[in-house]
Amino acid sequence: MNTQSAPSGGKMVNSFDPGTTRDLDPVLADRIERRQRLLGPAYRLFYKEPLTVARGEGALLFDPEGNDYLDAYNNVVSLGHSHPRVVEAITKQLGVLCTHTRYVQESILTLAETMLPSFGGTIARDGHMMFTCTGSEANDLATRIAMHKTGKRGIIVTAEAYHGNSHLTAGYSPSLGGKSPLGAWVRRVAGPDSYRYDPATLGQKMAAEVKAQILELERHGDGIACFIADGLFSSDGIYSHPTDLLAPVAAVVREHGGLYIADEVQSGFARSGEAMWGYQRHGLDPDIVTMGKPMGNGYPVAGMAIRHEVIEGFGADTRYFNTFGGNTVAVAAAQAVFDTIRDEKLQENSLKMGTLMREGLEAIAKKDGRIGDVRGSGLYVACEFVTDHAAKTPDAATAGACVNGMREERVLISATGPDANILKIRPPLIFTEAHVDRLLSTVEKVLGRI
Amino acid sequence: MNTQSAPSGGKMVNSFDPGTTRDLDPVLADRIERRQRLLGPAYRLFYKEPLTVARGEGALLFDPEGNDYLDAYNNVVSLGHSHPRVVEAITKQLGVLCTHTRYVQESILTLAETMLPSFGGTIARDGHMMFTCTGSEANDLATRIAMHKTGKRGIIVTAEAYHGNSHLTAGYSPSLGGKSPLGAWVRRVAGPDSYRYDPATLGQKMAAEVKAQILELERHGDGIACFIADGLFSSDGIYSHPTDLLAPVAAVVREHGGLYIADEVQSGFARSGEAMWGYQRHGLDPDIVTMGKPMGNGYPVAGMAIRHEVIEGFGADTRYFNTFGGNTVAVAAAQAVFDTIRDEKLQENSLKMGTLMREGLEAIAKKDGRIGDVRGSGLYVACEFVTDHAAKTPDAATAGACVNGMREERVLISATGPDANILKIRPPLIFTEAHVDRLLSTVEKVLGRI
Repeated sequence: MNTQSAPSGGKMVNSFDPGTTRDLDPVLADRIERRQRLLGPAYRLFYKEPLTVARGEGALLFDPEGNDYLDAYNNVVSLGHSHPRVVEAITKQLGVLCTHTRYVQESILTLAETMLPSFGGTIARDGHMMFTCTGSEANDLATRIAMHKTGKRGIIVTAEAYHGNSHLTAGYSPSLGGKSPLGAWVRRVAGPDSYRYDPATLGQKMAAEVKAQILELERHGDGIACFIADGLFSSDGIYSHPTDLLAPVAAVVREHGGLYIADEVQSGFARSGEAMWGYQRHGLDPDIVTMGKPMGNGYPVAGMAIRHEVIEGFGADTRYFNTFGGNTVAVAAAQAVFDTIRDEKLQENSLKMGTLMREGLEAIAKKDGRIGDVRGSGLYVACEFVTDHAAKTPDAATAGACVNGMREERVLISATGPDANILKIRPPLIFTEAHVDRLLSTVEKVLGRI
Repeated sequence: MNTQSAPSGGKMVNSFDPGTTRDLDPVLADRIERRQRLLGPAYRLFYKEPLTVARGEGALLFDPEGNDYLDAYNNVVSLGHSHPRVVEAITKQLGVLCTHTRYVQESILTLAETMLPSFGGTIARDGHMMFTCTGSEANDLATRIAMHKTGKRGIIVTAEAYHGNSHLTAGYSPSLGGKSPLGAWVRRVAGPDSYRYDPATLGQKMAAEVKAQILELERHGDGIACFIADGLFSSDGIYSHPTDLLAPVAAVVREHGGLYIADEVQSGFARSGEAMWGYQRHGLDPDIVTMGKPMGNGYPVAGMAIRHEVIEGFGADTRYFNTFGGNTVAVAAAQAVFDTIRDEKLQENSLKMGTLMREGLEAIAKKDGRIGDVRGSGLYVACEFVTDHAAKTPDAATAGACVNGMREERVLISATGPDANILKIRPPLIFTEAHVDRLLSTVEKVLGRI
């Protein structure tokens, strides 16, 4: 177990280094310098040569000169850029009414009625929907409720997890780097590295590590409020399999009185192709489900689904209000997105295109020894580079060169993992065979020259 | 000093009591019961008889039957409901591109260039703009940065402050009630009650209380990261004057190495009529300015302006990314709002209409002994009810009856303060003389019968 690995400071995988503006086109360099002056030092750009975007449509982004870029990275616009049904729903509602949840409105009830059955299990039977603006807010609220419910403060996450940008959630997002402090009651377990450990025993290994950390929290005089994980372990390196991993973890957490929070910001809304929600692939019945990014296809709307018994005491003791969360326009956007995923059969498409993409990458891997592992579920795909197959030594240089080489060829992806050696590919769910072909032939071309 | 006053549990000023649905129209009662089932126990509705809204235009909201309600409460839509310029800006951008801040874009730079000069002082000279989705996120981030900068954890707020719904900000929002726990390093000082204390010495009184709490924080082994206040003290009871109050506080805070955060979520964007930003009325030069609610006239956009030296270390050690914060549509909305405030001279209108409203309320107060004080700045107006003028005993019953009586007469306001005895009036900044007349004649009519 290596929970101390790779404190990356303020660095970020695939970020632009502002010390290199002199190598850029003068117009771009000038705009980046203005940006640093106006937005300050906490903002980051993607790529060695940052990209200026002017327009988006479907799976394509366009630069100001009209060149198209295949977007195989942005999971927010999972219905594709500027999806007409979402644009229309927002536009129509904007002209009618945009107000908050302290007046009675039918549309928020319809949305909750549409979504709640999709969670199955206890939440479908007696759960509630709550609305925030961002996934960070959803995770922050879920953890607040977990602490209120259990009377404990301990939070367990995976070693490279990312769960948000608020003080509380950044405090359990080790992927923000070694200089972003973790909270006093936060403990980490290794991500489920299915490439380096035996998948058959990975669930028991993870459950044992979680148990050890719970005992540690109890030994320090508190205990566990919740375990929270993204079911695809995106920032740990994208681990989609095995799927018998999280049930043993949930069992240990509950034995000790903790709650299981399924963070579906990355894996939800049909992304995995195999289920609407990532935790369903693991056969879990979570206490709280949080969601965000694709929920409004770009409109800031996020939320959670929660068991009644978990929120009961919190609701009696205090209240939750979010000025924009669940406002009438956010609700219109979320309803359009959820309905479109169903009507356009995007879960099925994600499964089909994801499988095609992994098959294509595996075919490339047979000819290219630098690829150690291809994995993923639906349109969340990982491709891991190593310097040798026996020691499985991470090869960040090839991953970085591939990401930037593909950007030059106008295909947008990124990298992930503690060692930044894993391609992160998660295009809109409307990806077609032609898009998959373009992506694969570009990977092949770029790997051929680096 | 009474910082222990009125722990209100899970109760909220002017909230509907779900135990009373049986007294309502069956259609409304049914919808409220569905709402409780679908959204759960943490949501609250306004008024004894909750209002169903279907449409909004300018200063009016409409129920499904088409009856109009004068909106003198919702400060988010400060340009009025469905303002055509904002609707058009959002609609246009939605069809072009909605993406995040890790690509280079001109519009976010233009917005920052437009807004930064408005802050004056150090921030106008060398500050940065940063974008979030909600005021809670802005305050949470500001406090994170303050803790990072100072290496301390202490946060000082007023006794009934509200600053947000995240774990960190709820932890310094005592107005959430006695069962919503304050953070370990949070300390409170009395709100500046200009009705009960001598305005001439209120600044010294507040500064002395802040100093005592700083010493207390230092005595516990830490110190002060920041003092944060809403310059109109909305949830403390709306205290707009005196305006020589906060400079002495800021001086004490800085003497001890803390930062001054101006929370402009309520008082910013010309609401006070006297300045674009509430802190400017107090002659302050803050370290961080946070903003939210009216920034996108309903679109979820918020942010902060910050001195370079305050964010420098944070930016080097870690990063800030907010998926939707500062996305191209949020930026289009915020640009339209800021430009409209200027072009429609809404600061001037807020000053003029606010003065008219207070004069009208003072005229009513001369005939009605229950009104103890009328105060405010621009279109943020307070009217305090007391049972007798000598003891100034708070009269929550009259305030509650007035708010609900006005709702029956189709004028929407609410109440505030630790004792819930103060009318809170904050209409859109486009309010006209006819709107002010309608509001005043309704106040008079309702007070005449309760």
